[in-house]
Amino acid sequence: MTDKNIQLVSTISEDNKLTIALQDTGMKQPGDDQVVIRIEAAPLNPSDLAVMFSVADMTTAKQSGTEQNPIITADVPPKFMSAVKMRVGKATAVGNEGAGTVVAAGSSPAAQALMGKTVAVIGGGTYRQFLCANVQSCLELNEGTSAKEGASSFVNPLTALAMVETMRAEGHTAIIHAAAASSLGQMLNRICIADGVDLINIVRKAEQETLLRDLGAKYVVNSSSDTFRTDLTTAIIETGATIAFDPIGGGQLTSDILNCMEVAAARDMKEHSVYGSDTFKQVYIYGALNRGPITLHRNFGFAWGVNGFLLFNALGKLGTKTVMAMRKRVVDEITTTFASHYTHEVSLAEALHLESLATYSKQATGEKYLITPQR
Amino acid sequence: MTDKNIQLVSTISEDNKLTIALQDTGMKQPGDDQVVIRIEAAPLNPSDLAVMFSVADMTTAKQSGTEQNPIITADVPPKFMSAVKMRVGKATAVGNEGAGTVVAAGSSPAAQALMGKTVAVIGGGTYRQFLCANVQSCLELNEGTSAKEGASSFVNPLTALAMVETMRAEGHTAIIHAAAASSLGQMLNRICIADGVDLINIVRKAEQETLLRDLGAKYVVNSSSDTFRTDLTTAIIETGATIAFDPIGGGQLTSDILNCMEVAAARDMKEHSVYGSDTFKQVYIYGALNRGPITLHRNFGFAWGVNGFLLFNALGKLGTKTVMAMRKRVVDEITTTFASHYTHEVSLAEALHLESLATYSKQATGEKYLITPQR
Repeated sequence: MTDKNIQLVSTISEDNKLTIALQDTGMKQPGDDQVVIRIEAAPLNPSDLAVMFSVADMTTAKQSGTEQNPIITADVPPKFMSAVKMRVGKATAVGNEGAGTVVAAGSSPAAQALMGKTVAVIGGGTYRQFLCANVQSCLELNEGTSAKEGASSFVNPLTALAMVETMRAEGHTAIIHAAAASSLGQMLNRICIADGVDLINIVRKAEQETLLRDLGAKYVVNSSSDTFRTDLTTAIIETGATIAFDPIGGGQLTSDILNCMEVAAARDMKEHSVYGSDTFKQVYIYGALNRGPITLHRNFGFAWGVNGFLLFNALGKLGTKTVMAMRKRVVDEITTTFASHYTHEVSLAEALHLESLATYSKQATGEKYLITPQR
Repeated sequence: MTDKNIQLVSTISEDNKLTIALQDTGMKQPGDDQVVIRIEAAPLNPSDLAVMFSVADMTTAKQSGTEQNPIITADVPPKFMSAVKMRVGKATAVGNEGAGTVVAAGSSPAAQALMGKTVAVIGGGTYRQFLCANVQSCLELNEGTSAKEGASSFVNPLTALAMVETMRAEGHTAIIHAAAASSLGQMLNRICIADGVDLINIVRKAEQETLLRDLGAKYVVNSSSDTFRTDLTTAIIETGATIAFDPIGGGQLTSDILNCMEVAAARDMKEHSVYGSDTFKQVYIYGALNRGPITLHRNFGFAWGVNGFLLFNALGKLGTKTVMAMRKRVVDEITTTFASHYTHEVSLAEALHLESLATYSKQATGEKYLITPQR
């Protein structure tokens, strides 16, 4: 094994500069309950961009360094510096998940059992050549599953499954999903079809409607349409959906969803109430695609909740037994239900080329990057 | 017993008119598990105004009829008619609570046990002379408690107690309350002092600050102050408050509260996270003093909830045992912790005089009406 261990790090300096670069962090000896994974594939998810770019203004991004050792710098607007003060001066590792081969293992039986195996891993900065990780952060992939196939085993699969399990745990029977043409949305669509759960997909473009319908989606509504609210209400009446998951946040989509749910619920009311319907309506906001204010036009009574939704918090609420079953399902269906598709495969160095950075932001329209640190 | 039973009703007609008037509904024979209460005192709460005025534009209110039988009419803006279509043409009884003497009882032992007793009652339209109510809607007052003292035994006392019990049930240890100088707010202040729970009172006027401090409140912050956010954050740091109750809704107070909670929570973070702090932050919105949009400027991470809060739903979540203990506490402390103060006492007819209507809206600044239907 080499001693070299290149990783991608993002650093904000005191003089309002973001720098993204590669650095050699050297190899680490695994502790008793740790393994060293040779990372062979790691996806670039929106949540990774948030760590990599932080609050920098990426329209100011410049590339320097060399072809094999590029350096990206960008300006951080001074007003945002206080929000990231805990990051200043610290090289922050990037990469929430990935997969590869276990090349060294600690002394514990659980660690030893993974030696030579292909595993997926969560956390720790996976955009590097060798990652030292705790055994419980690893998921052993089935025989025959490649690192590339297993690279996205955590973030999207578990989030999509957590949505369905949260729906069940909280007594709802159908789901509304916004920005539904995403990788995550397509997974959720496959889970719901397999499990017989009605899913209302909200998209904003005609081609996304077509994409989802071609994937078997029964309910697809377009938020850009003049008839959006009527269409959504009709779909809610047909499905009985009272829980929604929205990665957008800013704007009034959350409000629209709650109001359409209330219109649907009010149809069953025998008499008027100033408090609105008794039907509990829930929207979980799991992203910040729109960082602007969330505006709630409250015509939806008093039986409602709007909550942030974060995978790890959701898993904590669902409990160990459910989470173990979810992990097993991901492993067993990683090439079907939970298959991810990548439009670009790049090395660590190529990930830092300006043209790559410029297209990351297009992920929502179908661009998806896979980083292969061994190239 | 007379056969006459005057009650106050609110009706919206198909031609966009709201009419509030008195009508004789006659006496009702109680069923087995029912009692007839001679209503002697019934408070006018903001939630009663919502039923009485509905969506009418009360600036158009006119009085007709006679001194003893006044009729109020007002215009309903056409755009609101669809929201109240289930009310159209139906005389809607008004009055959520009140107290009086049981003058007739059904055959069940529980009903018979209340015969002659002074009881408080919830629901059914208490702005009338005689109300036929189910036994479980009644709360027998202690010997010596008058109907006037017990008139407000449900809405404010149980809501204030439900806030404290919800805080406990959901694992928080201190409370933020907005519009805290209200009758409800003063009760909550007394409960928190008695129970040793830290309470941060948000008010918007200097005299409300003084009022609450004179009542022993330790934490009072003024949302009109230039230093409001700093003051609130400081109070949150001192108390550890992570749950808030807000009757306003519209505007950005909810957002401010969540952001101040997050600033306080972030002080304990060891490293930066794009997801914000792990500290779960909850705001319950229990009214609509501002019917405008709720605007959330989301700098408070992903561990948060904003929910509607309605007494009956909250009691359902708290469970029978807790609710029974709450009811007993209200009965025992109705003249101390849960004492209400009224600035006006009016008959049913006087309640419908224009000058009364005009001052109802001032309740938040300390005006509070008691209706005494037997005058």
